[in-house]
Amino acid sequence: MNSFGRIFRITIFGESHGSSVGISIDGCPAGLSLTTADFDTDIERRKGGTQKGTTPRTESDTPIFLSGIFNDKTTGAPLTIIFENNNTRSSDYEKQRTVPRPGHADFVAGKKFGGHEDYRGGGHFSGRLTVCLVAAGVIAKKIIALHNNISCTATILEVGAEKDVEAGLQKAIDAKDSIGGIVECKTVNLPIGLGEPFFDSVESLISHAVFSIPAIKGIEFGAGFAAAKMKGSEHNDALENESGKTSTNHAGGIVGGLTNGNELIFRVVVKPTSSTPKEQHTLNTASGQMEDFSVKGRHDLCIALRVPVVLEAVTAVVLADLLMMEQKIKRVV
Amino acid sequence: MNSFGRIFRITIFGESHGSSVGISIDGCPAGLSLTTADFDTDIERRKGGTQKGTTPRTESDTPIFLSGIFNDKTTGAPLTIIFENNNTRSSDYEKQRTVPRPGHADFVAGKKFGGHEDYRGGGHFSGRLTVCLVAAGVIAKKIIALHNNISCTATILEVGAEKDVEAGLQKAIDAKDSIGGIVECKTVNLPIGLGEPFFDSVESLISHAVFSIPAIKGIEFGAGFAAAKMKGSEHNDALENESGKTSTNHAGGIVGGLTNGNELIFRVVVKPTSSTPKEQHTLNTASGQMEDFSVKGRHDLCIALRVPVVLEAVTAVVLADLLMMEQKIKRVV
Amino acid sequence: MNSFGRIFRITIFGESHGSSVGISIDGCPAGLSLTTADFDTDIERRKGGTQKGTTPRTESDTPIFLSGIFNDKTTGAPLTIIFENNNTRSSDYEKQRTVPRPGHADFVAGKKFGGHEDYRGGGHFSGRLTVCLVAAGVIAKKIIALHNNISCTATILEVGAEKDVEAGLQKAIDAKDSIGGIVECKTVNLPIGLGEPFFDSVESLISHAVFSIPAIKGIEFGAGFAAAKMKGSEHNDALENESGKTSTNHAGGIVGGLTNGNELIFRVVVKPTSSTPKEQHTLNTASGQMEDFSVKGRHDLCIALRVPVVLEAVTAVVLADLLMMEQKIKRVV
Amino acid sequence: MNSFGRIFRITIFGESHGSSVGISIDGCPAGLSLTTADFDTDIERRKGGTQKGTTPRTESDTPIFLSGIFNDKTTGAPLTIIFENNNTRSSDYEKQRTVPRPGHADFVAGKKFGGHEDYRGGGHFSGRLTVCLVAAGVIAKKIIALHNNISCTATILEVGAEKDVEAGLQKAIDAKDSIGGIVECKTVNLPIGLGEPFFDSVESLISHAVFSIPAIKGIEFGAGFAAAKMKGSEHNDALENESGKTSTNHAGGIVGGLTNGNELIFRVVVKPTSSTPKEQHTLNTASGQMEDFSVKGRHDLCIALRVPVVLEAVTAVVLADLLMMEQKIKRVV
Repeated sequence: MNSFGRIFRITIFGESHGSSVGISIDGCPAGLSLTTADFDTDIERRKGGTQKGTTPRTESDTPIFLSGIFNDKTTGAPLTIIFENNNTRSSDYEKQRTVPRPGHADFVAGKKFGGHEDYRGGGHFSGRLTVCLVAAGVIAKKIIALHNNISCTATILEVGAEKDVEAGLQKAIDAKDSIGGIVECKTVNLPIGLGEPFFDSVESLISHAVFSIPAIKGIEFGAGFAAAKMKGSEHNDALENESGKTSTNHAGGIVGGLTNGNELIFRVVVKPTSSTPKEQHTLNTASGQMEDFSVKGRHDLCIALRVPVVLEAVTAVVLADLLMMEQKIKRVV
Repeated sequence: MNSFGRIFRITIFGESHGSSVGISIDGCPAGLSLTTADFDTDIERRKGGTQKGTTPRTESDTPIFLSGIFNDKTTGAPLTIIFENNNTRSSDYEKQRTVPRPGHADFVAGKKFGGHEDYRGGGHFSGRLTVCLVAAGVIAKKIIALHNNISCTATILEVGAEKDVEAGLQKAIDAKDSIGGIVECKTVNLPIGLGEPFFDSVESLISHAVFSIPAIKGIEFGAGFAAAKMKGSEHNDALENESGKTSTNHAGGIVGGLTNGNELIFRVVVKPTSSTPKEQHTLNTASGQMEDFSVKGRHDLCIALRVPVVLEAVTAVVLADLLMMEQKIKRVV
Repeated sequence: MNSFGRIFRITIFGESHGSSVGISIDGCPAGLSLTTADFDTDIERRKGGTQKGTTPRTESDTPIFLSGIFNDKTTGAPLTIIFENNNTRSSDYEKQRTVPRPGHADFVAGKKFGGHEDYRGGGHFSGRLTVCLVAAGVIAKKIIALHNNISCTATILEVGAEKDVEAGLQKAIDAKDSIGGIVECKTVNLPIGLGEPFFDSVESLISHAVFSIPAIKGIEFGAGFAAAKMKGSEHNDALENESGKTSTNHAGGIVGGLTNGNELIFRVVVKPTSSTPKEQHTLNTASGQMEDFSVKGRHDLCIALRVPVVLEAVTAVVLADLLMMEQKIKRVV
Repeated sequence: MNSFGRIFRITIFGESHGSSVGISIDGCPAGLSLTTADFDTDIERRKGGTQKGTTPRTESDTPIFLSGIFNDKTTGAPLTIIFENNNTRSSDYEKQRTVPRPGHADFVAGKKFGGHEDYRGGGHFSGRLTVCLVAAGVIAKKIIALHNNISCTATILEVGAEKDVEAGLQKAIDAKDSIGGIVECKTVNLPIGLGEPFFDSVESLISHAVFSIPAIKGIEFGAGFAAAKMKGSEHNDALENESGKTSTNHAGGIVGGLTNGNELIFRVVVKPTSSTPKEQHTLNTASGQMEDFSVKGRHDLCIALRVPVVLEAVTAVVLADLLMMEQKIKRVV
């Protein structure tokens, strides 16, 4: 269940307040140059920067290679990377045992795992594990770039209905509350024909991966939900030439589940951070009574700000696998 | 690639104008009563009925059991069902070899399969194959109903921005064009704890399956894209009691990737039928020139009308698998 | 559970006395020429010929293509083949409900599937389904031959301890009993490097597939069990040149789980046909008493005679998948 | 490729001379007590003890839990264990770059991974990784014991054709060579009905796992290769009562691919250690000439001595998965 992919296959593990979180990558081509420096940019991006409302826990987040790298190149054997957890303050989370945090997995995790789950900081359900996805993404991005320089770029489109991030965040700060957002991801230079009609459409695989990112609650490709209001003659993208180029791109680069040679475009909605500064009214499972509750500790006001680099990562992971399935990337590069 | 599921696992095959389309179901519990009559209602629903703008090809669509049924019960061995294709008019589709139909997979399929694909009527990419999904859904619905009477119901929310189906269709008819829509699916009586945080969240698995249905371009769970405009204190669903019941359901019944005991709710957008009556301007790949093109044959104006029963089907398939993973359904029932 | 393979992936279905048995093949390269005539030789070989002691049920065994073939070529979509069951005599098998046949799956299948299994003729456990494996093998053999003309050949080494098939069979006839045998399979022209050390060694994958063939109870590669008596200096195969050619081949063409460029050699043991003409003493589950029992109907005295073509088939299936994993076979051929 | 199992699923990683080797276990039931002390016995057994001819590299081999354990119990999230590599002497292995060691994967690994593999000590192909299998086995043994106290025991049957280990080893010492052996594994208390006829027979899954253990070249179940010489009336095991008990056990506890309630018995052959003290004649790939070659460093004379605990481990891993598939083990224990 904690694995994803067919050839380029990732397996994730770890808990927020355990010793470390990590990812093992199978099927990585041999011969790819890789050093810890390659991870710097994306891991820094995930920290959310210095924007107001962003208060990440301070982890050094240096990738530690356990396997699969030799002489600064991938070996073709499983590549395992861990990140140590140092900056953990477990005392922040004791109360959630009796008052499950609204919007978090505390309550359902307890039911599923019979109370044996590591509940500290959300345990295996924590956003902390997205650092592993980012790490896999760094490698996947290197792989997809080998074919025609394919690259993914995700950006924040909206925060709290505002097109401007600053304005959206200020809304949240003024309301002493957290806020949601929309993130868009674009991928260029894809070949025609990645994916399958059943069941591994490009939409199927990307959405599968994307919904592993905590807080994402919707995805749309190309025109997306706007297509509900469109006529066929409006939505159809006319083919312009043999390269597959279409005059419009309402399909978001995917037809019949397959890439069509145009830009791959999708958007996701990120719900507001569940840990809001605002007081909430919820169940105390010990007393059986509803009570007022407020989240202790520092949290991001808008988790969407951290999503772009993770979204790029899972997209690149899906595409690396599809490119290998279609033999566009060799086993030794 | 044409298989889906871990324990309750379906494998689809067939082309629109081949001899038949079919589905093989592995991991089906033994001892489930099943006759062809069980399929009548859902297969009839898929035909789209007598609504204006719906002009399905007339297939009898009687399921033929090839394996896995004995004395009107499932045996526990793979259950294979085929549907014969009788009402095929391949001559309708000859032209698409030189003028790939806009919005269809004709062009990309040709590139992917080197021109060897069965191009008649979309071949393996055809909506015809959804009859197989519906058949799997009939069985999956019977299975999930065994646990606490779980059931899925999908309905059309919008056609062409109208809340009323008739009004939406009339818009399309007036415009001599096809039209898109939105369909919602609700599932009741689910236990707490189905799914996994990585990578098999309930959202991941449902979206994976849903995007196998042709024409679907977006999905949102619970509040969905509206969450982008919400504050955390608005979006969070407060827990009311130990059964998991929450006062609101913005999460759509899924927290941390797991079912939380509330109604599972999601919506999908269905693009307008690619085969529109309206004339289009697109590439003739033989001449290399753009030309006017209109689709011959009769087609649905709004493919969304046919989607609800297919949506229920794939949802039930996902849930049957998850229920078996969590041992909520026995191997012999 | 009824599927095998990663890219070239087969899914089997059917029961001995159901309407048909079949196989669906996913991941088959597009553009491969294929007609029913291609199956004649191997399907005929499986029938066991006219050898004394071989009394197969007479099935025409004409493959019926349900999908995946267009203009006599594979399309790249799932290729499904069925074989109708015509020559079934279910009355032969009624008694096994109370007296499970020794050596057969009757008893365990009843326990596993709660009595819902199709018990006629062994149902899904029947050797009848090997015709599906042979069909998949016909296609797989065509695929592997595309790379350097790789080919598999299996032959009978021993029947009842005799190197001569006739002599071995005569032993069984004289004893009015069935008899076991040993079959060897050799594959030539393999490239170096197919397979993986963990867990998909060539030995792992071949043995996984081979033990799906009813009646096989052991497998050995190269020197096999004789290696237990050998010294390292005897068993090690010295490398002779860069092509990977070794002076001896005690490894059977596999080192570290990978093909090493030499002939791939393995042997399997086939137990004596469980349905022996000889009277046996076993449990009547209705009475709870032991009783004398003899199998009605005509059966092969030595099922090993039918195994070679099935062994070649599953070997070719494994190798086709491995060759596609290593990108030695293109997706469109 | 480096993963195995459907529900209880293991993923292995690491190289002989990398920083560590490890295993991640997905699908482990929550609530299982587990401390490092649980690993002591089996990890010690793997070291091969003080027997003459056994000269293991001295590793402390203390399991380090990276994830999945909380308050000394499994959490239900992925459980990852690593073992650090301390006692590495890479200089031992430099020569193998030009003179690939006979019987080892050096040459084929170089071809497969384009020379990028970590060649030190066999890298990912090393027997060092069996410590990870043993660790997974410790957990799997605890799981299977939960159902009717199922347990696996493997013992050495033969060393160099001698029934007595001492005598077999002395043969090797006298010959200044390494030697092969045979190991048997027995499992008691299994329920009826684990496994599937296609393709996941118990023989298929066990052999798949077993052939991941370096040096194993053959496997036989029950009577095994001796069945080739047997008559049907001899080989068939007569059912004695409803518990599935048979009077003999030539089937080795598996009929039709399913466990039949009797002892599960199989034997494997272990080739002589490839690193023999004896001088060998093999290719120098730099010079293109054959040359005399002898392995430096200390190595086991008979690797079979180390195999029993590894064999038990992979058997328990397979059975844990099958028991979970059949819902004989709960997700929370």
